[in-house]
Amino acid sequence: MILNMQAAKHLAHLEHLGDAIKFAAQIHALIPKCALLENFSPAEVRLLAHFMEMYRAEPAMEIIREGEGGDFMLMILEGKVDVLKRDRHNTPQLIATVDAGKTLGEMSMIDGEARFATCVAIEPVLLAVLDRENLARIIVEQPMLGAKILMELVLMLSQRLRSTSSRLLGLLDDHPQRAETVS
Amino acid sequence: MILNMQAAKHLAHLEHLGDAIKFAAQIHALIPKCALLENFSPAEVRLLAHFMEMYRAEPAMEIIREGEGGDFMLMILEGKVDVLKRDRHNTPQLIATVDAGKTLGEMSMIDGEARFATCVAIEPVLLAVLDRENLARIIVEQPMLGAKILMELVLMLSQRLRSTSSRLLGLLDDHPQRAETVS
Repeated sequence: MILNMQAAKHLAHLEHLGDAIKFAAQIHALIPKCALLENFSPAEVRLLAHFMEMYRAEPAMEIIREGEGGDFMLMILEGKVDVLKRDRHNTPQLIATVDAGKTLGEMSMIDGEARFATCVAIEPVLLAVLDRENLARIIVEQPMLGAKILMELVLMLSQRLRSTSSRLLGLLDDHPQRAETVS
Repeated sequence: MILNMQAAKHLAHLEHLGDAIKFAAQIHALIPKCALLENFSPAEVRLLAHFMEMYRAEPAMEIIREGEGGDFMLMILEGKVDVLKRDRHNTPQLIATVDAGKTLGEMSMIDGEARFATCVAIEPVLLAVLDRENLARIIVEQPMLGAKILMELVLMLSQRLRSTSSRLLGLLDDHPQRAETVS
C-alpha cells in the first residue's frame, strides 16, 4: 500500500487508521446501502480494500472543504455527515445529511477540481478513502475491478445528473431562460 | 462486429452504413472538439471504431426520442442536431443545438433508463453509435481502452453535474426549498 500524499495532507487533521484491509468485512456489509458497491462480490471488496486508507473523524470536524483541492473520494462506514454549500451570501447552507454507505467527493477524485461542498462529521465517523492515484493503480493492476468501479461511478453520476437536470428544468419552466443541459 | 439488435431496432429509420472502421480517420479528426476522445491516440480511435456502427440521418429526422428506451450513445461526426425536452405542458422546448464532436445519450447507454431528451437532425447528420453490449465487450477484450472510455464518461458527467448542480442551487437560493444534491 502506497500512502497517498495528497489525501494524507488533506486529511492530516483526522486519525489515520492504516489501510482498509482489516475493514473489508465492514465495507462488505455496506453493499445493500452503497450504490458504488452494489454489484461487488466479497472478493472484489477485499481487493478494493487493499487500495483504500481508513480515517476517523470526531464530531464537528470538517472532513473536506468546499473550494479546496483533493483528488480522493470518501466512503462513510459509520457515523453521520452534514453536507453544506455556501449560498450567494457566502452563508453555508445544509444541503444534505448522509450516513453509512454514502460516498462523497467522487467528482473531485475524477476531475481534480475544487470540492463542490463541505462535509462535517456530526457523530464519530469512520471513513474509507480512495484517491485518484490508487484508482489509476487499480485500473492497471486489476482492470476488471477498475472497470467495475468506473462503471458504478458513471451510473451514479448519470442518475444524479438526471435528477438534478429534471429539477433544474422544472424550475426553469418558471423562468424565461433557456437551459443548456442536455442528455 | 456483432450488429447490435437494440440499436439497430431503434435506429431502423436511419440509413445504416456498417461499422465505423472506415470512418476512423474522421473520428480521429474530432478529437479536439470531443470531450470523450480528448485523450485518445490514433490507435485507440481505430480500436474503438471496431466497436461502433455508422448511421446517417436526413434533416428533420428524429434520432432518439425522449422517454423511449435504447442503451446506446451517439457521436456526431457531421451535421447539426437539435435537442428538445418536453416542458410541464408537454410542449417540446429546444434546450440545445449541437454539432460534430458532441456525444448524446451516454446516460441511457450506461443506466438503460429512458432518454432524457429528443434529438432531431437539422442537417444531414453522420453518427457513430456505441451500445452497452459493445462497451461491455471493449471492457472484456480491451480493458485499458474500456477503462479510458469509462474514465472520460465519468469526467464528462462529473463536469455536467457540477454545472447543473450549481445552476440548480443558484435558482434554489431564490426559493424557500432545500436542495438534495451533494458533491
